[in-house]
Amino acid sequence: MRNLTLLTDLYQLTMANAYYLKGMHDRRAVFDLYFRRNGKINYAVAAGLEQACEYVRDFRFSEGDVEYLKGLKIFDAAFLKYLAELRFTGDIYAVEEGTIAFPDEPLMIVDAPVLQAQLLETALLNIVSHQTLIATKASNICVAAEGAPVVEFGLRRAQGPDAGVYGARAAMIGGCRATSNVLAAKLFGVPPSGTMAHSFVLCFPDELTAFREYASLYPDNCTLLVDTYDTLRSGVPSAVKLFTELKEKQGYLKSAAIRIDSGDLAYLSKKARALLDAADLGEVKIIVSNEIDEELIASLKNQRARIDGWGVGTKLITSGNLPSLGGVYKMAAFADGGGALQPKIKLSDTLEKITNPGVKEVYRFYSGETGKALADLIALRDEKLDFRDGFTIVHPTERWKKTALTNFRARKLLVKVFAGGEQVYRPPAVPEISAYRARELETFWEEITRNVNPHIYKVDLSEGLYDLKTSLIEEMQV
Amino acid sequence: MRNLTLLTDLYQLTMANAYYLKGMHDRRAVFDLYFRRNGKINYAVAAGLEQACEYVRDFRFSEGDVEYLKGLKIFDAAFLKYLAELRFTGDIYAVEEGTIAFPDEPLMIVDAPVLQAQLLETALLNIVSHQTLIATKASNICVAAEGAPVVEFGLRRAQGPDAGVYGARAAMIGGCRATSNVLAAKLFGVPPSGTMAHSFVLCFPDELTAFREYASLYPDNCTLLVDTYDTLRSGVPSAVKLFTELKEKQGYLKSAAIRIDSGDLAYLSKKARALLDAADLGEVKIIVSNEIDEELIASLKNQRARIDGWGVGTKLITSGNLPSLGGVYKMAAFADGGGALQPKIKLSDTLEKITNPGVKEVYRFYSGETGKALADLIALRDEKLDFRDGFTIVHPTERWKKTALTNFRARKLLVKVFAGGEQVYRPPAVPEISAYRARELETFWEEITRNVNPHIYKVDLSEGLYDLKTSLIEEMQV
Repeated sequence: MRNLTLLTDLYQLTMANAYYLKGMHDRRAVFDLYFRRNGKINYAVAAGLEQACEYVRDFRFSEGDVEYLKGLKIFDAAFLKYLAELRFTGDIYAVEEGTIAFPDEPLMIVDAPVLQAQLLETALLNIVSHQTLIATKASNICVAAEGAPVVEFGLRRAQGPDAGVYGARAAMIGGCRATSNVLAAKLFGVPPSGTMAHSFVLCFPDELTAFREYASLYPDNCTLLVDTYDTLRSGVPSAVKLFTELKEKQGYLKSAAIRIDSGDLAYLSKKARALLDAADLGEVKIIVSNEIDEELIASLKNQRARIDGWGVGTKLITSGNLPSLGGVYKMAAFADGGGALQPKIKLSDTLEKITNPGVKEVYRFYSGETGKALADLIALRDEKLDFRDGFTIVHPTERWKKTALTNFRARKLLVKVFAGGEQVYRPPAVPEISAYRARELETFWEEITRNVNPHIYKVDLSEGLYDLKTSLIEEMQV
Repeated sequence: MRNLTLLTDLYQLTMANAYYLKGMHDRRAVFDLYFRRNGKINYAVAAGLEQACEYVRDFRFSEGDVEYLKGLKIFDAAFLKYLAELRFTGDIYAVEEGTIAFPDEPLMIVDAPVLQAQLLETALLNIVSHQTLIATKASNICVAAEGAPVVEFGLRRAQGPDAGVYGARAAMIGGCRATSNVLAAKLFGVPPSGTMAHSFVLCFPDELTAFREYASLYPDNCTLLVDTYDTLRSGVPSAVKLFTELKEKQGYLKSAAIRIDSGDLAYLSKKARALLDAADLGEVKIIVSNEIDEELIASLKNQRARIDGWGVGTKLITSGNLPSLGGVYKMAAFADGGGALQPKIKLSDTLEKITNPGVKEVYRFYSGETGKALADLIALRDEKLDFRDGFTIVHPTERWKKTALTNFRARKLLVKVFAGGEQVYRPPAVPEISAYRARELETFWEEITRNVNPHIYKVDLSEGLYDLKTSLIEEMQV
């Protein structure tokens, strides 16, 4: 990854300049990175931490960067000199990639001198929100596919090269089996996948010739694209002919499939299945692509379409129905002049924009009986919580709504990834993260992770956090 | 830009391997890059050509790339050796950035040995589609703003670093006045913009103190964020106090503004305007942000909101309601064994997916009287078209629908950007492109460029192209 230190909003630098000139730049600040509840995301699959760590590790303004900033003629010379030497010296906590996370829970907490914490905001939000968004979408799609393989095909439709590459990474974390993206496959050690395009078929006098030429080179990994001319009248019959020849010649077929990329996928898949079965080609799978997402998968399954695998492009790589996670990075605490950390809250005329103050810890409670997740609790880090004799969780706003937990275990979700500016966390490889995500998902009842009208998982505020929040709100409104 | 040669779909490489082994790799092929009609884009602002050119110029597989591909154990050794030496040797035609383009018109034509043309597909689509999408969205938003400044604020919500950086570039091409993205501003020579965040306000004991500290450093470029606590009860009154002090001290105010980032923007802007005006601060502008797009701008204008400028983030940088242009890259011609170029067509069960065959030229006709664009014509490059005594254009499918043009001039939209593998086109700087886009937009009646129910601009097929298309379809269906 190239150096992204200048990948920030100008206001981070105008504010930094002010903090520096006012002598406030080293005052300790704590920021939470999280996403707000919206109608479309019930749970998220955290992703992007590895790239976020790389960015922080490499954080330094180059000479050219400083020169450029000088040319804007809005920054103090001493400040620019300070910037040129600046490195990250703070602490960062984060949920590990592949963790299931919920709205309002910090995905990341930055605890650092205010000037630094502020300068990191934009890039951290960009990196973590993007990958979390795509990993989440991939999880939704894979849940709909109910175990059938989903392959990520979206590079050409992604919002630029990084969206293709890191989107593919996130899609693999979220549950995809492979990606068409060769660069992503190389960078992240995941399987690349792909066979032929329509243009290949067009390069030969007819479909059967194209299929024969292809199968002669790739007899054991042969997915034939059958909709270049006419799926049922030309494509599938040619595929049947080719696979019959190949099976006769080899005595077996391995990884043989057809792909349908247009038309009525329910109808065509059923008809194609019948043609394949009638030719004793039950082992030939049917893969489909073309504007696939979790809703279309559910609809096709509902129509009893005969589909064995899904190639998912545009709607996965752009998170079609929600192209931004809406991540935010909000100040939770700031040191006063004497150095004592004070909790901070941002009020707002938009209620959901009011923040949770203070330095936080997030707990997840699991049933001792079923092992399933019961609820999460956002608490203050220095709050003394005693889980030994059961624990009562309380709804974040409707405080009469309480749930008493017994026979449970609690787990802290945040791990320390930077300490005093040094990276102390070693990110796992993508296949490990994906396996962890699968285990994580298993700990949730499927009523929580289903795509349509899911149960809202409980994310409660501790007594300490709730009291702090209400007292700060009251104080502000005096 | 880093080397993106491996930024491709695996199937491009499995096909390339096949072309190579079949001795077909040097056969000439012509591909069109374009986008299909969809309900949401009426016209597009072409963008991304500069980065596309960089990609093609730098096209070469590194040793590490070839080593990686070897490890996949699906490619022939001679082919991999060939790949290691491969450079682009073909021709590319494209519409210049900032040009107004329509569905089905080639934004780019690649005329090259089939193996090369195929390998370029994925990255060209990724780069050109993304930037065209965002430039188009920016144009829609700026049209809604009717000349009021629109500033791009989306980096934190973009789909990864590139989406932020190249999205900002495209937004500037599409009409934004500035971007918050410092890296993009540096790379593309466009103005960065930004002042303060909520966290800055939280760093001081109260809002007025925060504003005073800020204004002491930036007295001549002071946009105060007024919604940290309570917009009308605290933020605006504090801003009024600050600006009154500042005006008294300086005798003038320069680039003074307030920004409202939450709540009811219509109501708050009107009330804020009244408070400012009552304090004789008519020169203080009101800027708003928070989920702005062309629809919200139109609605706020309709409500007579008092808004002077727009900060646009998420919905611009992700093209909220349409996060992919749906760009495609389709084979239009392929040389036969004797080397003669043959037109190619792809049929499909999905009608809109049927391609236009042949090597093309795109003409735009302008009225000699008004200078306004009348219609576009997609024709064959070698078609003899005589425009001297008027010209009759014909609807692409409803051929009875004809329009006779007299007193017009015709302009070719495509320019040659690569010749024999060499870049022969020098991309202009972003500010020049944006100025060109503004002039281009002026040549369209506003009925074409408006956001709600726009007229469909005529894009017709020439007689030659129409006849070729229908004859190929008939031939295929025998």
